[in-house]
Amino acid sequence: MTQRNWNTRAEDKAERLAGIRAKLDGKILAREHIADALYALIRSGDRVIAEGNNQKQADFLSGALAELDPERLHDLHMIQPSVGRPEHLAVFEKGIAKKLDFAFSGTQSHRIGALMMDGTIEVGAIHTYIELYGRLFVDLIPRVLLTAAFKADREGNLYTGPSTEDTPALAEATAFSNGIVIAQVNEIVDDPADLDRVDIPASWVDVVVEADKPFFIEPLFTRDPRHITPVQIFMAMMALKGIYAEHGVTSLNHGIGFNTAAIELLLPTYGEKLGLRGQIARNWVLNPHPTLIPAIESGWVESVHCFGTELGMEKYVAARPDVFFTGHDGSLRSNRAFCQLAGLYAADMFIGSTLQIDPDGNSSTVTTTRVSGFGGAPNLGSDARGRRHSTPAWQDLAGVNDPMARGRKLVVQMVETFQAGLKPTFVDELDAVTVARKANLPIAPVMVYGDDTTHLLTEEGLAYLYKAESLEERRAMIAAVAGVTPLGLAADDQVTAKLRAQDKIRLPEDMGVTHTEATRSQLAASSIADLVDWSGGLYEPPPRFRSW
Amino acid sequence: MTQRNWNTRAEDKAERLAGIRAKLDGKILAREHIADALYALIRSGDRVIAEGNNQKQADFLSGALAELDPERLHDLHMIQPSVGRPEHLAVFEKGIAKKLDFAFSGTQSHRIGALMMDGTIEVGAIHTYIELYGRLFVDLIPRVLLTAAFKADREGNLYTGPSTEDTPALAEATAFSNGIVIAQVNEIVDDPADLDRVDIPASWVDVVVEADKPFFIEPLFTRDPRHITPVQIFMAMMALKGIYAEHGVTSLNHGIGFNTAAIELLLPTYGEKLGLRGQIARNWVLNPHPTLIPAIESGWVESVHCFGTELGMEKYVAARPDVFFTGHDGSLRSNRAFCQLAGLYAADMFIGSTLQIDPDGNSSTVTTTRVSGFGGAPNLGSDARGRRHSTPAWQDLAGVNDPMARGRKLVVQMVETFQAGLKPTFVDELDAVTVARKANLPIAPVMVYGDDTTHLLTEEGLAYLYKAESLEERRAMIAAVAGVTPLGLAADDQVTAKLRAQDKIRLPEDMGVTHTEATRSQLAASSIADLVDWSGGLYEPPPRFRSW
Repeated sequence: MTQRNWNTRAEDKAERLAGIRAKLDGKILAREHIADALYALIRSGDRVIAEGNNQKQADFLSGALAELDPERLHDLHMIQPSVGRPEHLAVFEKGIAKKLDFAFSGTQSHRIGALMMDGTIEVGAIHTYIELYGRLFVDLIPRVLLTAAFKADREGNLYTGPSTEDTPALAEATAFSNGIVIAQVNEIVDDPADLDRVDIPASWVDVVVEADKPFFIEPLFTRDPRHITPVQIFMAMMALKGIYAEHGVTSLNHGIGFNTAAIELLLPTYGEKLGLRGQIARNWVLNPHPTLIPAIESGWVESVHCFGTELGMEKYVAARPDVFFTGHDGSLRSNRAFCQLAGLYAADMFIGSTLQIDPDGNSSTVTTTRVSGFGGAPNLGSDARGRRHSTPAWQDLAGVNDPMARGRKLVVQMVETFQAGLKPTFVDELDAVTVARKANLPIAPVMVYGDDTTHLLTEEGLAYLYKAESLEERRAMIAAVAGVTPLGLAADDQVTAKLRAQDKIRLPEDMGVTHTEATRSQLAASSIADLVDWSGGLYEPPPRFRSW
Repeated sequence: MTQRNWNTRAEDKAERLAGIRAKLDGKILAREHIADALYALIRSGDRVIAEGNNQKQADFLSGALAELDPERLHDLHMIQPSVGRPEHLAVFEKGIAKKLDFAFSGTQSHRIGALMMDGTIEVGAIHTYIELYGRLFVDLIPRVLLTAAFKADREGNLYTGPSTEDTPALAEATAFSNGIVIAQVNEIVDDPADLDRVDIPASWVDVVVEADKPFFIEPLFTRDPRHITPVQIFMAMMALKGIYAEHGVTSLNHGIGFNTAAIELLLPTYGEKLGLRGQIARNWVLNPHPTLIPAIESGWVESVHCFGTELGMEKYVAARPDVFFTGHDGSLRSNRAFCQLAGLYAADMFIGSTLQIDPDGNSSTVTTTRVSGFGGAPNLGSDARGRRHSTPAWQDLAGVNDPMARGRKLVVQMVETFQAGLKPTFVDELDAVTVARKANLPIAPVMVYGDDTTHLLTEEGLAYLYKAESLEERRAMIAAVAGVTPLGLAADDQVTAKLRAQDKIRLPEDMGVTHTEATRSQLAASSIADLVDWSGGLYEPPPRFRSW
């Protein structure tokens, strides 16, 4: 057998680093050398992670990458949990990058859709977060990571503070495959003792650069209670009675929308009236939603493990260490990998919203004009088939009298039958099918599949989809709560009456929920200012949410 | 509202640590104070993690715990990825601990079964690993972690080396919930520069104690090729033709048994003859199996990410950094959390074995005399419903002509129809049902469910269970390959012939696999000594595997 070199990655890494040795002071790179450093450390065709999270953005580094010359550096394969910055797409338009594997694209959802469909971006897949992390250890092993932290010491230890987010997963996959870890930080401290805590050890980090300004962070989960409508409150009341109390849901994740914000704000009022405190919604897998403050302060919440932080919530979280996961420095330790894991395997319920639902119950936020990606929804909104522990809520969805019966995670879609602009939520075919065809994707970008969805809640009623005995019956149950959309109008009244008699669907009146009771006065807080009050002034909302 | 103390966990922790302040030199505790320290740091009723991994055991600490007086410390709720040491059960027999949540119990499987069924141990659940990690952040938040590392510096930075395993997940959940992290180490180094690398940062660790001897490590995945039988080789040939080549499986996990060891050893011989190198089995999610050495040396393997290490493989792994994930110190970085995540979301196939299969295809290693737990099998052996990327193998299991069709992970059970002692593998009802009843478990401890199993391979043939159109048909397919077990004898020959004609089952002759070809001469290595040779002397098998 010919002698093979088994150390090519480490040698290549050493060679790249040698190219900038003269510009480095230990691991510290002066800001003005960033372009030279990226040319030296990245090669055309590399797999490069640009971090790119839900909230935290390594924007100094991704901005520098986008300034490079595509003649010198091209055909990069970008791997990004989130595509959240204009420069994340500029690298494709300029020809520096060619292929993209990602999970979420909040603010760039319109533009990314266009670039996917005109072929500028070749998309590998739209993943759920931990699926993408998993692939970093298997078939998408990265060559370079561009990451961001609050602080570093001169050895390269990183303090990511409350914004740890995806960094441990991305750094581990890169550092231990002889990849190159480049970190931008807001501040370099001389004395390691001045580092609040170590989130990423120095030996995992190759280059540290102090950015020209603090990394960008998006307050993605702040919902102003002023925008919560009576219809959302009405649906939230149904959710609490027909799902949370019905099944005894104690561990859960909430989506990003106003629907679930309404539920959070009803716990200390309507929930209290129903006598549910301590019975439901105790252990959370959730970003630090400002709208959860009243429930926390009212003693509803035992624990919250966070995917990321939420801008403005830092002091509040630090003052509630019995509830949140915090470090010895007092600040939040978020961790998207473990939080998604907890959401998959340890939470009884996911409840979220979507843009389109087809007659089978498949749903997606991907439309022909907007490809926002999935983020955590496919993972959180699916049953962990490997789960082997029982809880009352999980067990409640099992069949009876079968020794092999297993329970099921509650996956709830909570939607109004019409979206803004009077577009029906219920459609004959998801736009995702068209997008797959136009963007040449191997599978349609479905967010949550119909066969994974256990409950569908609209303002018309609640369908217990897990009780459906056939696809045909599931379709009838969906149509029964689809209101005056074309799908809903086609529902057969007699079938609907039968489903109701079988307790497979419930109408608001079946649950004793009335529109007259569903007023904004039910909300524990009706404004951001109220949330600040609830927090005793600890919550410091970003300026754009302040009306005072 | 009355003023609530939101900092009780941190205050309690500080109080406990204050109790041993006089005995600490910084974070270093002298060995002789371990009992006093455990009395001070653990309180009755606490949730305590004793690490307890597949391989690495914090045995100095668990041994010290078992020596304590149950009058002073009792009713502990133990959380253990693995119950692998006699003292792990002694704490229950002595009354120090009462409740147990675990995932695996290798060598203790007989005794733990008896203690579960006589009520000495109250079992929460038998989890799959990452399910248990997930719960540490939700409803099983730990108070104390007893962990193990190779080295620590005097600040408390830990070097777990190739045996990182579960430590990052367990330490994160404990450290960031104001729990207490106690680490035993083989060696304390004075100069932080003498620490090979940092696997767990010092700020996550509270107490370090140098153990009296190196932590115990179990070579769990070493299979001596001498024990591989011609029948296993015969089945391995069917697997390669009928599954690996048939579906183009490139990313995969192998179970622990001789069946899959046979496959590993056929790659450079039979697999090469079939022209499959580079086409299949490139990216692995696997412990460093010694039996994979010939395939690695023959250029089959692009990458291996490891759950844990394997005793004796340290030097070999360190010499193959292009294949394995290693740190800048050169040694393996294993990580069970990320490896299980990769196995769930990024691997196309799980193939393993079991002790019992029921007529529906449900399988378990739990029997009335032996409760070995599940380890990673339920997670690895289940479809990730949240997966949204496509690969040829995954897509090959999707229905056709349906824009909503999604692929599926291959979950393969590979069993001989009879176990040792001529006990049929195929049984009317799993022992797990009886165990659940006797040990008062809420659900039967099934390892892999029939509806998650896509392929069943026996020496009689291969059933493509994912093609079954009904439960009845799945049962017929299972019976068709169940040989001369009672289940197999009851199979209807006409139905079997029809299934074969429909390509839902294949017999060995359908795949061109013959017993005459299935000889031990097909194995790339026929002994441990051969594996050492293949490794160029880098593999250093533990003494018990040496016959020379």
